[in-house]
Amino acid sequence: MTTDEASTSSGEARRHRRAGGGADARRAARSSGRQTQLTYIKRNIPLYEVVSEEGLALIEANAERVLEEIGIDFRDDAEALAMWKAAGADVKGERVRFPKGLVRGLIKTAPREFTQAARNPARSVVVGGGNTVFAPVYGPPFIRNLDDGRRYATIEDFRNLVKLAYLAPSLHHSGGTVCEPVDIPVSKRHLDMVYSHIRYSDKPFMGSVTAPERAEDSVAMARLVFGDQFVDDNCVLINLINANSPLVFDGTMLGALKVYARAGQATVISPFILAGAMSAVTVVGTLTQILAEASVGMAFAQLCRPGAPVVFGTFASSISMQSGAPTFGTPEPAHVLFGAAQLARRLGVPFRSGGGLCGSKIPDAQAAYESANTLWPTLLAGVNFCLHAAGWLEGGLASGYEKLIMDADQLSMLQRMSVGLDYSANGQALDAIAEVGPGSHFLGCAHTQANFETAFWRSIVADNNSFEQWRDDGGKDAATRANAIWKRQLREYEAPELDPGIDEALQAFMARRKEELPDSVG
Amino acid sequence: MTTDEASTSSGEARRHRRAGGGADARRAARSSGRQTQLTYIKRNIPLYEVVSEEGLALIEANAERVLEEIGIDFRDDAEALAMWKAAGADVKGERVRFPKGLVRGLIKTAPREFTQAARNPARSVVVGGGNTVFAPVYGPPFIRNLDDGRRYATIEDFRNLVKLAYLAPSLHHSGGTVCEPVDIPVSKRHLDMVYSHIRYSDKPFMGSVTAPERAEDSVAMARLVFGDQFVDDNCVLINLINANSPLVFDGTMLGALKVYARAGQATVISPFILAGAMSAVTVVGTLTQILAEASVGMAFAQLCRPGAPVVFGTFASSISMQSGAPTFGTPEPAHVLFGAAQLARRLGVPFRSGGGLCGSKIPDAQAAYESANTLWPTLLAGVNFCLHAAGWLEGGLASGYEKLIMDADQLSMLQRMSVGLDYSANGQALDAIAEVGPGSHFLGCAHTQANFETAFWRSIVADNNSFEQWRDDGGKDAATRANAIWKRQLREYEAPELDPGIDEALQAFMARRKEELPDSVG
Repeated sequence: MTTDEASTSSGEARRHRRAGGGADARRAARSSGRQTQLTYIKRNIPLYEVVSEEGLALIEANAERVLEEIGIDFRDDAEALAMWKAAGADVKGERVRFPKGLVRGLIKTAPREFTQAARNPARSVVVGGGNTVFAPVYGPPFIRNLDDGRRYATIEDFRNLVKLAYLAPSLHHSGGTVCEPVDIPVSKRHLDMVYSHIRYSDKPFMGSVTAPERAEDSVAMARLVFGDQFVDDNCVLINLINANSPLVFDGTMLGALKVYARAGQATVISPFILAGAMSAVTVVGTLTQILAEASVGMAFAQLCRPGAPVVFGTFASSISMQSGAPTFGTPEPAHVLFGAAQLARRLGVPFRSGGGLCGSKIPDAQAAYESANTLWPTLLAGVNFCLHAAGWLEGGLASGYEKLIMDADQLSMLQRMSVGLDYSANGQALDAIAEVGPGSHFLGCAHTQANFETAFWRSIVADNNSFEQWRDDGGKDAATRANAIWKRQLREYEAPELDPGIDEALQAFMARRKEELPDSVG
Repeated sequence: MTTDEASTSSGEARRHRRAGGGADARRAARSSGRQTQLTYIKRNIPLYEVVSEEGLALIEANAERVLEEIGIDFRDDAEALAMWKAAGADVKGERVRFPKGLVRGLIKTAPREFTQAARNPARSVVVGGGNTVFAPVYGPPFIRNLDDGRRYATIEDFRNLVKLAYLAPSLHHSGGTVCEPVDIPVSKRHLDMVYSHIRYSDKPFMGSVTAPERAEDSVAMARLVFGDQFVDDNCVLINLINANSPLVFDGTMLGALKVYARAGQATVISPFILAGAMSAVTVVGTLTQILAEASVGMAFAQLCRPGAPVVFGTFASSISMQSGAPTFGTPEPAHVLFGAAQLARRLGVPFRSGGGLCGSKIPDAQAAYESANTLWPTLLAGVNFCLHAAGWLEGGLASGYEKLIMDADQLSMLQRMSVGLDYSANGQALDAIAEVGPGSHFLGCAHTQANFETAFWRSIVADNNSFEQWRDDGGKDAATRANAIWKRQLREYEAPELDPGIDEALQAFMARRKEELPDSVG
């Protein structure tokens, strides 16, 4: 690509052309096959809060004590230590202790909510406030489906999962590492992952965090799509920064954090907690540590660039004291989720947690009970950004094709829940009650006729036929039906339009970087 | 049994002897194999309420309009019509219309909460207030398990399900028709069902409602167990009275209602709603009808005997507009459940709804997602009495052995949820956070050692082993593990002690009644 080409077909200019249509573009999108896509959830039902006002104040006071008296290690990052010293923290070696109020004060520059732009403006999401954004599973090295069983994931799987998430109306986000494409060298796979999100979806997506230069590459690719100025002025990437609990941030994550925050891109600061291992075994103790860790990470992002969008993240599970394995769908992490959401709201920042988490290896009843046991708290706690919302199996070691379909179906159920009640005259239905009267039925009444198409949420996975019909259809279980659904969806998948010039620029960038990067790292 | 025996070994006297120990008896029960039994839930977490104050007032006003302007049919029960006329209602034919305020005024004599006594006093439950009582599935003519598939249920199945519910710590109640024992004539099976609850469990149970004389038999058998005076003074039976929605009570249900209310026994007045068929397709319209129907039923119980314990019941599902079949685990009935719970609280009466409801024919992921989608609202709405909490399959057509085990496991999870957070010094765990510090782990710290046995809820069904271990153990799904659990439980089952004199009296009563009753009815 020549300089001229790069200039005349810059991502920014193209984006403005495409976005120019505005309402027209959205109408066009709706009239295509994509009209069933749901925008992110704008909650219209109350929050559920388990922690009392006194409990929250206690946890906040305890977190301040932890930050002041114990402190947090910033490892392998001299610049971070210098920044904290300059900000007024007490730095001894890699240990940073924070005078009371310093961290909360720094977070004040963080936005209460922010928009992450998608390349299709109709898919942009607002993270924070009364909104919930569902994104698919993140991180598994394995995939599982009924055909192959469990095996290492490939870039083909990655593309398939991006396509399925693109087609799922209730997945508002394309996510990040929907599986690890282990057939591509670690040093290079971030390029293929970011490219796949851009090429096979038009929903917002996540950048790479496994090394600072991979974060730089993610931002560079976003610039090719959205244009330099747009990326400088807007959030187009949201990025997962795990604390190394307890009470440590390591150089790798700090490096990625700095790249993204300085580029004005969003970071989700997530303590990754298996309670009993990375935190104390109690809910209140775990919440104290999570608040301390997440607050410090978000404050550090503000040191990098005041106003940089941040999200208070929480990944909490407990471990089996028998096997040492993480367990999911249990009550204690649900309480942590509810409590952390409340703490985030008091800090005035968006909150990330939840998902369709399970320990089950297969998409069976265990997987479903456990996933529902985290999805319900996800909705009711008011999670703003939900990673792992669909496709998670085996404690995060496997991405499940069928599980993604089944979870996404449940997400659309929760989205319908979030709409709340209709108190209009039509909702009150007094005419219908009068028309039908005692001892008759509502099946044919005018009100039912007028409303039945939209009255009830419909599952695409559940079988609600009679026993005899179900038996004659082969007596299939939910996973078998989900298997047929994802296969049909992949067969019928059509990629969203992508400007050929952008595609070419992205491919050229990737080719150059793949030549520059070594095949192996370490 | 001679008259002398009956007098010296009367149920009442025996019951007082057994209950005499009080704390001693409870200690003895705990030190036996039954120490893992949980008492009913005494909620320590907040309620979740979806309907606004204005919404509730609107629904209440609309329900009053329905009662005044449309009214409710009382069919095949001249006595009921006369009672309503005497109470000030407008009776024309079988249609009863209620002046504003009449019904709500009558309900004022109903208790806010009441105790249902069990023959083992440690198992008595308080229905109402902040309490939740879980009872198993009610009504299916079929059973399903992995060995037999689906087949008609027998009295042997009935006994097995009673035994499994007895052994499940989180099932606080033995329930009623845990399955229909179709190998016994309809006219007689109520005797075997009530007897099985008494003989194979010591938890509270339900009486028969399928005919007034079967209700009389249920009370008579309770008298043999508890003694006449105790039954006159206490609730020992709770009984399911379905309204024949929309807006009808039929003679059969009214007959049973009158027997139980006059005997001072509890009635659960439950509109049975498949929205779209028995009610309007909207949540607010359905709530209006449910409030009207349940209120009238509860008021009628107060006409029979002021102060008779009543429960505001709600069974709500929606129908598939494709197949006409009921659907479960969907958002609209969840909203009905939340709203009806609020309406019941405003009326000042206990509330029944919820359960592990599903449309799935088998204990697969569909069954689990759907069940969880009603169990979560059950807990959070503040349901006081929950029928169908475990074992429900196929829209209530089949009782599942494996499903009962899996659901009961989930109930114990919800019971743990209900305990809420520990804000004590031990719960705060500041010492542990200080002891471990940054970059270490909590596995061996003193706080973890002191707490790990009770820190986290444990599933008895979930497999939390590594993938390799799970694979080497046979790669089983949750249903297969549940199958092994119920078989082991039935093998190891030991019946709770029952006074031989009571047993003899019950058997003599049943023998006499079986001679009196015809084999076929109708």
